[in-house]
Amino acid sequence: MIDQSAPTPGPDSLGTLAILWHGDRLALLDQRLLPDQEVWLTYQDPQGVADAIRDMVVRGAPAIGISAAYGVVLAAIQARVQDDWKTVIGEAIDVLAASRPTAVNLFWALERMKTRLQACQAPDEAIASLTGEAEAIHAEDVAANRLMGRHALSIMEEAPFSVLTHCNTGALATGGYGTALGVVRSLWHANRLKRVYADETRPWLQGSRLTAWELQQEGIPVTLNADSAAAQILRQGEVRWVIVGADRITANGDVANKIGTYSLAILARHHGVRFMVVAPSSTVDMALLSGADIPIEERDGTEVRAVRGVAIAPGKVPVYNPVFDVTPAELVDAIVTEKGVIEKPDAEQMTAMFGRR
Amino acid sequence: MIDQSAPTPGPDSLGTLAILWHGDRLALLDQRLLPDQEVWLTYQDPQGVADAIRDMVVRGAPAIGISAAYGVVLAAIQARVQDDWKTVIGEAIDVLAASRPTAVNLFWALERMKTRLQACQAPDEAIASLTGEAEAIHAEDVAANRLMGRHALSIMEEAPFSVLTHCNTGALATGGYGTALGVVRSLWHANRLKRVYADETRPWLQGSRLTAWELQQEGIPVTLNADSAAAQILRQGEVRWVIVGADRITANGDVANKIGTYSLAILARHHGVRFMVVAPSSTVDMALLSGADIPIEERDGTEVRAVRGVAIAPGKVPVYNPVFDVTPAELVDAIVTEKGVIEKPDAEQMTAMFGRR
Repeated sequence: MIDQSAPTPGPDSLGTLAILWHGDRLALLDQRLLPDQEVWLTYQDPQGVADAIRDMVVRGAPAIGISAAYGVVLAAIQARVQDDWKTVIGEAIDVLAASRPTAVNLFWALERMKTRLQACQAPDEAIASLTGEAEAIHAEDVAANRLMGRHALSIMEEAPFSVLTHCNTGALATGGYGTALGVVRSLWHANRLKRVYADETRPWLQGSRLTAWELQQEGIPVTLNADSAAAQILRQGEVRWVIVGADRITANGDVANKIGTYSLAILARHHGVRFMVVAPSSTVDMALLSGADIPIEERDGTEVRAVRGVAIAPGKVPVYNPVFDVTPAELVDAIVTEKGVIEKPDAEQMTAMFGRR
Repeated sequence: MIDQSAPTPGPDSLGTLAILWHGDRLALLDQRLLPDQEVWLTYQDPQGVADAIRDMVVRGAPAIGISAAYGVVLAAIQARVQDDWKTVIGEAIDVLAASRPTAVNLFWALERMKTRLQACQAPDEAIASLTGEAEAIHAEDVAANRLMGRHALSIMEEAPFSVLTHCNTGALATGGYGTALGVVRSLWHANRLKRVYADETRPWLQGSRLTAWELQQEGIPVTLNADSAAAQILRQGEVRWVIVGADRITANGDVANKIGTYSLAILARHHGVRFMVVAPSSTVDMALLSGADIPIEERDGTEVRAVRGVAIAPGKVPVYNPVFDVTPAELVDAIVTEKGVIEKPDAEQMTAMFGRR
């Protein structure tokens, strides 16, 4: 007899892609309008891509890096007929770098593009070379995500369990498949996942708008909760791992990620639930000794005073709206990148895996 | 020279009242529409009051108890010409008791009304007697709130500091002045308050819609934050106390309160910030040994899937929406009622102050 109540894992797909490169233009799925509208915006110049990153048409550390890389290709196409094409492309890289401050993947991707640019002798060569590099960054991100899923499963229990996640770290936040949500996909595909609890993730609601939507589309069992209900969920014992992404990881294993991550790490430790951070190695910034050195973006209070244009607070009330927080390494049980797993991260293990800078 | 940046505490007022009794009808400020609309709804029958409690026109444990008491008076007025007036009033009490399950003040207020009712011999006597009792419950609540403010200040540092609060525990949640927010009022009046950080308090947004509004109206400095930013705020050291209300306190000092309170208690302890619960003694339920015995209300998932009618999640995504959680006594530094302060609450101290049941 078949248990009708037990859903069947589907194919281990990449998920809903949000970045499409058309050779001469970049299409981005406008994540501000999800889940009710699926609108694609098309960009042909780097300034437009920088605006899209700042305005959060595209978000998620790896997706930002990939988009910025394609933005550099657009700059090269535009600069083709200009004598100072190299300078113009260099300036576009600076504009893209200034779009958001916290995620290091952005700077890492732009560094790769800059290195390629420097080796080019002619505009056509630059277009071809930069296109190749951007597509490589994109493809490597997907491959890294698949690998992270495999690495993560190697340290998790075999019997099915539930997880809790924060923000959106899925296909929408990456080149495809996802980081923390990629691990969720891998668990599901391996028949080792009961249910995902998704924090709604105020103020931008990445959890309710994006994660719930992504998981529902693939039939992965998801339950949405207010962020403040996470402690109550962790207390109940069904969740064995909290799994999150990262925007920057420092040389000692401190992790900058979406506001609320630090809170979850404390709550997980209090309840004996393990806490896993999943991110590509491009998120690791060995140049920073600890999380204290990470610039934390604060966004406008309007994000807290209103939801989708509807006011929910007095118009002029002061708001503290940090977008990220830093989780100290001692609250992290495992950092998973495509290079492998570091349990109980510290500077020594980080240096052994990622080198010095 | 006067420091223009330092605001001056105003008079120690009751705050914005939300419950007005007109002798034959009850007027409630519709808290679902705040802060953009101030609409008063008028009730002349107990069923209407029960609906208002269930639908959260009025909310906050003490305010629910007071409203229900007036609802019993309305029942007495309606039953005046009926032979079985006592039975009819008794049935109305049952309807009111079924409106919401977690706050014990509701049952406590209705018990007082029932005791009065039983002593009455005639309908007119019942109206007069029940009116007196409801007005007493209301007046005692305000007096208790003022006393709690005084008690709380006796254990807090003299030098000005900031506090963080959750949900709304002000004039709107009580007969006036407030419980936790009454302590905030007292601190402000005594020149001992720097700033209040107000959790927005998803899903119902009592913090952004009500607390921010109440505090702004009286010029008390308030900063609004997403619930998930509380850990980041507590880490910064400016906040010395987290101050919250309660819906039920059990014989061992466990505290049921708005979802997110338990989370805050863990975060406060982690950061060495003290955690104070402020509630009238009518919130104490010595009949329950511990928080495990408290029925926790779950409300419809729509509260999480939409904000003020605007969808923020896929329409059919499952939601876990517990309205309250239980904070174990060991995470509570002080319980303050009008009877005094219990520090590091336990069954022994609770019994000494509130008696056995």
